[in-house]
Amino acid sequence: MRSENTTPHTSSITRAEREKLNQHKAAIIWITGLSGSGKSTLAYALEQRLYQMGCRTFVLDGDNMRQGLCGDLGFSEEDRKENIRRVGETAKLFYEAGLIVIAAFISPKKEERDRVRALVPAGDFIEVYCECPLEICEQRDPKGLYKKARLGKIKNFTGLSAPYEAPVLMEISINSVELNVSASVENLIEFLFPFGR
Amino acid sequence: MRSENTTPHTSSITRAEREKLNQHKAAIIWITGLSGSGKSTLAYALEQRLYQMGCRTFVLDGDNMRQGLCGDLGFSEEDRKENIRRVGETAKLFYEAGLIVIAAFISPKKEERDRVRALVPAGDFIEVYCECPLEICEQRDPKGLYKKARLGKIKNFTGLSAPYEAPVLMEISINSVELNVSASVENLIEFLFPFGR
Repeated sequence: MRSENTTPHTSSITRAEREKLNQHKAAIIWITGLSGSGKSTLAYALEQRLYQMGCRTFVLDGDNMRQGLCGDLGFSEEDRKENIRRVGETAKLFYEAGLIVIAAFISPKKEERDRVRALVPAGDFIEVYCECPLEICEQRDPKGLYKKARLGKIKNFTGLSAPYEAPVLMEISINSVELNVSASVENLIEFLFPFGR
Repeated sequence: MRSENTTPHTSSITRAEREKLNQHKAAIIWITGLSGSGKSTLAYALEQRLYQMGCRTFVLDGDNMRQGLCGDLGFSEEDRKENIRRVGETAKLFYEAGLIVIAAFISPKKEERDRVRALVPAGDFIEVYCECPLEICEQRDPKGLYKKARLGKIKNFTGLSAPYEAPVLMEISINSVELNVSASVENLIEFLFPFGR
């Protein structure tokens, strides 16, 4: 912590008050998985469904975060770690603002995911494992990144030249090969609102 | 831009749709002024008022941002610049999420404020100059920072050892000596909702 001479301000509006206004709880839904596993597709489909239910929601996405807040970061191990740290802190701000924030990031390291988990009260961080075999992700290769990585044009590519630590104890696991997107979204909605809304 | 191999994802929900759900427009309200000029006080009072009106709002504050997202930054010129850049990008995300985001930062440089302004469409960035003479800010010294700065314990302190470029063309100016907090808030509400809500 290099920011000395600062004191935390307490917002005059509590998260509980914001949740009351929104008529739903705030949460961080953290979708982890390999590149091409379907994280962003799932995130945006879930956002759409939540919006239709009248929920306040927002997607933080690996790609679009890197166009702005994390545009100064590359893909070294250190930069990827800093990327996830910033995303976690941003997700926390949205959570404090009362939103259901959906973060879709490869986030390959358990330790880094757990660090974000620890930012909010237990139960309010929902880790979603977007499960898909590497072979199928590589076949899909929606952005041509696996191809580039195989040609050595991308270093530190998760699943090929950098490790992915799959979640073991997560809140929910979605197999994006077995389940289509809308069924996956319904699974998540059922987890979030077991008694309906 | 060091983040190669990324493509911007378009959120499935547009800002216009979020504004419709919230029944108000999104905006970035950027409060600039010297340390002790009353920025945070004004920000939180405005947030309270907007909440009572049923608006979705959130305060980004110089101090509490530095506890999290910008906790790795110090107060060198470079780090202060990066701090404002990150706050601006975070404010933009909240804006895209449909909120009225209130940012209270000394943000001493016109160039840096203008860079945030350029992130959103014209009219949606509202620069508020929280005006207060340096002498009065130093008398107030709510956090004892001027005292520390005078003793040389804080370097690059805006107004003393680092310049403050007061806004010339801003959307609204609030003199925190002449106006009390609630009158200042009403001025801002009138600016935001000239025809009521």
